[in-house]
Amino acid sequence: MRTLEEHRELAEQALAGLPFAEELSGLEEALRYSLLGGGKRVRPVLCLATGEALGCEAEELLPAACALELVHTFSLVHDDLPALDDDVLRRGQPSAHVRFGEGIAVLAGDALLAEAFRLALGYSDPGVARALADATLGMIGGQYLDVTAEGELGAEALQRLHALKTGRLLAACVESALAVAELPEEPRGPWRSFGRELGLLFQIVDDLLDATGTAEELGKTPGKDEAAGKVTYVSLHGLDRARELAEDTRGRVLERLEALSADTSVLEDLVATIRERRA
Amino acid sequence: MRTLEEHRELAEQALAGLPFAEELSGLEEALRYSLLGGGKRVRPVLCLATGEALGCEAEELLPAACALELVHTFSLVHDDLPALDDDVLRRGQPSAHVRFGEGIAVLAGDALLAEAFRLALGYSDPGVARALADATLGMIGGQYLDVTAEGELGAEALQRLHALKTGRLLAACVESALAVAELPEEPRGPWRSFGRELGLLFQIVDDLLDATGTAEELGKTPGKDEAAGKVTYVSLHGLDRARELAEDTRGRVLERLEALSADTSVLEDLVATIRERRA
Repeated sequence: MRTLEEHRELAEQALAGLPFAEELSGLEEALRYSLLGGGKRVRPVLCLATGEALGCEAEELLPAACALELVHTFSLVHDDLPALDDDVLRRGQPSAHVRFGEGIAVLAGDALLAEAFRLALGYSDPGVARALADATLGMIGGQYLDVTAEGELGAEALQRLHALKTGRLLAACVESALAVAELPEEPRGPWRSFGRELGLLFQIVDDLLDATGTAEELGKTPGKDEAAGKVTYVSLHGLDRARELAEDTRGRVLERLEALSADTSVLEDLVATIRERRA
Repeated sequence: MRTLEEHRELAEQALAGLPFAEELSGLEEALRYSLLGGGKRVRPVLCLATGEALGCEAEELLPAACALELVHTFSLVHDDLPALDDDVLRRGQPSAHVRFGEGIAVLAGDALLAEAFRLALGYSDPGVARALADATLGMIGGQYLDVTAEGELGAEALQRLHALKTGRLLAACVESALAVAELPEEPRGPWRSFGRELGLLFQIVDDLLDATGTAEELGKTPGKDEAAGKVTYVSLHGLDRARELAEDTRGRVLERLEALSADTSVLEDLVATIRERRA
């Protein structure tokens, strides 16, 4: 079984070598700029590590893993647009619209999403593509809530927003691996519970980092959420309580992993990484 | 067999009754605004009429037909954005970004595309979703060529641009119907040739209408292509020659239909409608 770092390298190489549709040749520079500009590759690694724990070969999983990172990158490129989050820094470099202009950023985001589906549809089983569609719809709904919320969000609404905006794609990483592994329906439940808890952990840590990290550490503008008056786990509960929540959630994620009858050591390593840092 | 008008009504009803993903509730007004604001429904009708000629029930075809109109509407909403074609009028009403703001228009376009895939993925055969992904990639590539071209396009480049921007989705209407009908690979060729020629006809007529129609007839700003210095069949060949080209192409489309061993009377009616007018 590969280590966490080997999974990451595998994902990185697969993304770097991804052939884009020939029709997109004019957009290729913008696509590679956004896709290859760093990032911890949490989503493809989660898909690879889940699939390997279920007995799949990495090669079978790579198209799904890349498709998940494409969907993630699509959402970053569009969310950074001036009409949405208006963020000029992403993964440590100018956002796509700053570098290429807004029109190209809109098209590049669209292209990343369409390419994700093309990749996912390379499987004869539509399960991977269905997981992507489901996650994408959730992410868009979450981003809508995020840009239209006016500071009156309570704890429950915040959790729903994050479950949509971040949690659904992480859940899809697990779900895609289940589809590639052709796992029967019944044992999927505990894996899905793990995916849901992991999504929650991820978001709490993200809020903590936004409140305490530097631009260099994060690769994006820190403190933006607070400056924009967005409700976060930190603004809602304070830094100490948010740290406790992260710790509690991490405990539940590890419990879920222990309950699975599979070698989940790489997934445990992944959880440790998320707890420390993610960009 | 249903008439052309009955197919159109069927598509209209299905689109009006389309349930959107629950997560998109906040965006629903914007989605319905763009989707139900008129339009001739050429794409869903082409899918329905092709599928019925191949012996499918309309009910089996409707998810694919709706998905095709969703992809079309996604492209209109994004292409109309100020950073791309900057068009304020669409289907006779203010464009989505004029009505709802640019941020919502970006999200609504994304949501229309993701919903299209969700619908297409309701089929166990991935053929419909593959046709959508292929067409979407072509459309994005075509729009990139369109917004970056600087008047130096020759006849060949123009035809390529249009084949991508318009032709690929019309081809996908035929292809989706072939997938729903589960037609074997071999007899698909003549149907695909028909779809390709139809796409070309559609675009030449579109250029003719842009040059000669009124805003009321078109439901969008006329003369925009010319004003933007875009190369069209009319700017390249002149009005008379463009009309001849449309006539020749229409002849070839009808020849393709005659060569098919199916009752293609509704498709012939559709071709006649495209020749006269389309908005």
